[in-house]
Amino acid sequence: MTDTYRRILLASRPHGLVDGANLTVDDTAAVPEPADGQALVKVQHLSIDPTIRTWMDDAPGYLPPIGIGEVVRSGGIGEVVASRSDALPVGTTVFGMLGWQEYALADGAEGAMTVVPPGIEPAVVLGVLGVTGMTAYFGLKDIGQPRPGDTVVVSGAAGATGSVVGQLARIEGAGTVVGIAGSDDKCTWLVDELGFDHAVNYRTEDVAARIRATCPDGIDVYFDNVGGDILDACLANLAMRARVVLCGAISQYNEDRPVGPRNYLQLIIKRARMEGFLILDYLDRFPAAQLEMAGWVMEGRIHHREHVVEGLDRAGEALNLLFSGGNTGKVVVTV
Amino acid sequence: MTDTYRRILLASRPHGLVDGANLTVDDTAAVPEPADGQALVKVQHLSIDPTIRTWMDDAPGYLPPIGIGEVVRSGGIGEVVASRSDALPVGTTVFGMLGWQEYALADGAEGAMTVVPPGIEPAVVLGVLGVTGMTAYFGLKDIGQPRPGDTVVVSGAAGATGSVVGQLARIEGAGTVVGIAGSDDKCTWLVDELGFDHAVNYRTEDVAARIRATCPDGIDVYFDNVGGDILDACLANLAMRARVVLCGAISQYNEDRPVGPRNYLQLIIKRARMEGFLILDYLDRFPAAQLEMAGWVMEGRIHHREHVVEGLDRAGEALNLLFSGGNTGKVVVTV
Repeated sequence: MTDTYRRILLASRPHGLVDGANLTVDDTAAVPEPADGQALVKVQHLSIDPTIRTWMDDAPGYLPPIGIGEVVRSGGIGEVVASRSDALPVGTTVFGMLGWQEYALADGAEGAMTVVPPGIEPAVVLGVLGVTGMTAYFGLKDIGQPRPGDTVVVSGAAGATGSVVGQLARIEGAGTVVGIAGSDDKCTWLVDELGFDHAVNYRTEDVAARIRATCPDGIDVYFDNVGGDILDACLANLAMRARVVLCGAISQYNEDRPVGPRNYLQLIIKRARMEGFLILDYLDRFPAAQLEMAGWVMEGRIHHREHVVEGLDRAGEALNLLFSGGNTGKVVVTV
Repeated sequence: MTDTYRRILLASRPHGLVDGANLTVDDTAAVPEPADGQALVKVQHLSIDPTIRTWMDDAPGYLPPIGIGEVVRSGGIGEVVASRSDALPVGTTVFGMLGWQEYALADGAEGAMTVVPPGIEPAVVLGVLGVTGMTAYFGLKDIGQPRPGDTVVVSGAAGATGSVVGQLARIEGAGTVVGIAGSDDKCTWLVDELGFDHAVNYRTEDVAARIRATCPDGIDVYFDNVGGDILDACLANLAMRARVVLCGAISQYNEDRPVGPRNYLQLIIKRARMEGFLILDYLDRFPAAQLEMAGWVMEGRIHHREHVVEGLDRAGEALNLLFSGGNTGKVVVTV
């Protein structure tokens, strides 16, 4: 163990994509010693999620903004390397809000760190069984409430959450599953490997026209990860009593002034609803959902892919991939 | 009975407010003769509602647009003056889609015309017991679902629907009822006569700041009649799991390109939903609701006010009042 460790600190708040000036690499702090009840975790993999970008803004959100000079908040997986906690002995693998750093202290408080059982790949823990997979599970089932035969559309469909949403919709008995993604390769993956019925490349195709063509009876459940024009294109094609699941708005997080959905009055004409949710509210239901998801992964009914970026110093670059669409599946940084 | 009758036809589609060029007064057509099963209705009072303006646009809606050269579609009350229908004998007062004209044919089909019992003022039939009152009733109760103690906010609060929403919220046990309206006189009426706790004049006050001050725990139910900046101000002040009832968007109906709610991502942070509805879906529940509302009117728990415009030729001017905010309560045209 070295005496000091590397951390990525928020130096200034980004406008748009994160650039080098927004982050400081600091390797001057001493590796902390666990106090009584605490464990020291060596961070191995970081979960790179769009929500991290929202925490960098000085705006009211569901968690406080990351302070200037603080370690960038992030989920991750690591191994306990020193411990004064009976709950977290040395050698335990844990998942929790470890942050963009080489070491983190876990205090053993309930909910703060989850023990990861042996034999599960880190990428699966962070992806399908992690926050992104759970977001797909509860957002689709609890908020979208698909019924057998429904037409389900998801944007950001080749991302960690979207790719699971489409496959879950199939498992739930959806009649038609359509994904919206940003490249032909992604669209091919969605249809050929994940079993989507159709995929729309929003960079090259007229999204509203393609949704109209592939969803002739309208959209029953639209799971929105992106906001902006794609949300409007889907609002223009809702079925009666449709459910629009607001998961995120990746097209808007880098904008100083977000644009609202111009077609929101379609919610009146279609007697439809648009509802937001946060995965934080479902933590107590994770174990049962993870068990179900793990079963589907083992049966080959849920496929997943990871986009691995090597090196803590590249975490900012990895975050930007989510906004440029450079990733397919879950973005993970190996520390 | 004259041989010809007066009708207001849509001559061209308005941009913004209706002007004289959009409407044609026609008095060349012969008064129709009722065929077997039909009745001839002499139109007495017209219900002037914001939704009429949306029917003048050539845009997909919940009903087809009014065709160029057609009579302007409108609810109204009239009296049967000639009949070949057993269901609608001469002397019967009926409510239905009579249109902006002196005479209309009723064919006695179920749902097309409702017989109005004697002894109820026309203004009450068109207002509190009519479509605007029923819109308040089902929108608030079914979509807003207020619980005792909730904070309920309504925009367009001095209008025919908004004024009933606030009073119904009080009857349902709301803790705080706040109305947003466009003049000090309207605000005084809301608080002093209708029992609202607070009223905000959106023309002279900072709506977001006043909502923050009057709703310290946030808005549980927001009933939106207006859209635009006021919707955004309310979205910025939602309580957790709030319900936003989308009833209309009077600030947007005259715009060629509507603006969406920039603050819609608050629905995620507050785990809230925004839901639209159309009163057409509730027609079979009108009788029970009208009975309940009539009771509250007689007990003095629901107050109402009408803004009467005299003369069929002034129907267009009456419609514009809704958008300029020139009315308090229900706008009625006497023919």
